[in-house]
Amino acid sequence: MIKAGFVQFNPVLGDQETNIKKIKSLMPLAKDADLIVLPELANSGYNFVSKDHAFENAEEIANSRFIDFLIDEARKYNLHIVAGFNERENNNLYNSSALVSPEGFLGKYRKIHLFLNEKEIFQKGNVGLPVFDIGFCTIGILICFDWIFPEVWRILAMKGADIICHPSNLVLPYAQQAVPVHGMINRTFNITANRYGTERDVTFSGKSIISDPFGKTMVTAAPDKDAVKIIEMDIKQARNKMITPQNHAFDDRIVEEYSYLIS
Amino acid sequence: MIKAGFVQFNPVLGDQETNIKKIKSLMPLAKDADLIVLPELANSGYNFVSKDHAFENAEEIANSRFIDFLIDEARKYNLHIVAGFNERENNNLYNSSALVSPEGFLGKYRKIHLFLNEKEIFQKGNVGLPVFDIGFCTIGILICFDWIFPEVWRILAMKGADIICHPSNLVLPYAQQAVPVHGMINRTFNITANRYGTERDVTFSGKSIISDPFGKTMVTAAPDKDAVKIIEMDIKQARNKMITPQNHAFDDRIVEEYSYLIS
Repeated sequence: MIKAGFVQFNPVLGDQETNIKKIKSLMPLAKDADLIVLPELANSGYNFVSKDHAFENAEEIANSRFIDFLIDEARKYNLHIVAGFNERENNNLYNSSALVSPEGFLGKYRKIHLFLNEKEIFQKGNVGLPVFDIGFCTIGILICFDWIFPEVWRILAMKGADIICHPSNLVLPYAQQAVPVHGMINRTFNITANRYGTERDVTFSGKSIISDPFGKTMVTAAPDKDAVKIIEMDIKQARNKMITPQNHAFDDRIVEEYSYLIS
Repeated sequence: MIKAGFVQFNPVLGDQETNIKKIKSLMPLAKDADLIVLPELANSGYNFVSKDHAFENAEEIANSRFIDFLIDEARKYNLHIVAGFNERENNNLYNSSALVSPEGFLGKYRKIHLFLNEKEIFQKGNVGLPVFDIGFCTIGILICFDWIFPEVWRILAMKGADIICHPSNLVLPYAQQAVPVHGMINRTFNITANRYGTERDVTFSGKSIISDPFGKTMVTAAPDKDAVKIIEMDIKQARNKMITPQNHAFDDRIVEEYSYLIS
């Protein structure tokens, strides 16, 4: 059994130091975990007034106070962290999530399905849909609005993700209904780490959620409070893709009928 | 607004005449509908003791007492009917659904994802994933276990299905949780017409369900009773694929990242 969960909080727009302090204050509640997921753009907040504003609050991974902080926490508590991160690379911004361990920075995902005016701020992700074997399990990462595209949940599960980490800044309540079903269909554990609070005209919905490979909600958070929830997962459940003794979630796909999906 | 719904009943294994009588007795409750969906294998029942047993209870569409009966009902009530149908073609059996209108037989779908020992009885469907423009809307058809494959819901919606008709003989309760989410993601109305009752060692779960293009359950049936439920649908809701003013359910798909789905 492994222990995994989320830290739900309320990032402050454009104030990384305050966000680091808040995460630091909540991490002791996560000390027993092996894996923790933080919300989307946990370093910077979400609702930038302009691309310049977003740029001012982004960091390059190789030179990032926020990433260094995450690694320190990973070392202190001996766990892996997936955290949404406003990432700058030269003149480009990406809505990214970083994966760190006690050994340091392990990898990143850059969001491919951009929401509303994110399209004017961030580049579309260009690192594909990676999965990461972190020893005790294999994880994939999606970010917020990616949730509405069943293709990417499917791909990560087919690539071997046992747990799909889903840093989010959700506004609408739909994802919390859909994410467990993605898990049911693909037989994965899913961790949606959402934020709460309001930034200018946007209110985020909280209700972070962890679901099991049968679509069952294992734990949720309140819509408007800090929350750290850690639960035990039996990773074997995610590795058994037999829906029945004669039906396999992936091998039963009739791929020759699916070409329309990429036409 | 159109009116669509389901007839949930308890087909008797190997007794088409009794099944026809039962459907006939329930159809007056559907008289206001434009479109009605019946369960999977509504003519024959489900849990055959052998392939021969299934064969004895199948019909060819061109020479079918059951299809002729459906057309008579479609004429009597001036509606379209989608009904699960144990279909014989020469020496092959298909787990099919027929679409009929007052004008006669319009088309069929043959189930592609076969469940458990259906694999020993039926051929895999060989008519693809058709959609049917029936004037007041466009429909697609899936059958029972197809529900667990998000690919096929996606494809039918992308092909223009406003309503996905889902004749079923469900055993487990998972589909009723998942089908509304398929509808939310693809912005379709979904009608799962399930059966109830027990055949030998298999008990079916009833709870037929209609959901809207936002994932909301519009109506459900009891787990163990005949039920006819008809609701109004605003087809415009299914034709608006804008998730936000800047996000389209299909145009926002990043197809170049999806090739793994058919690799």
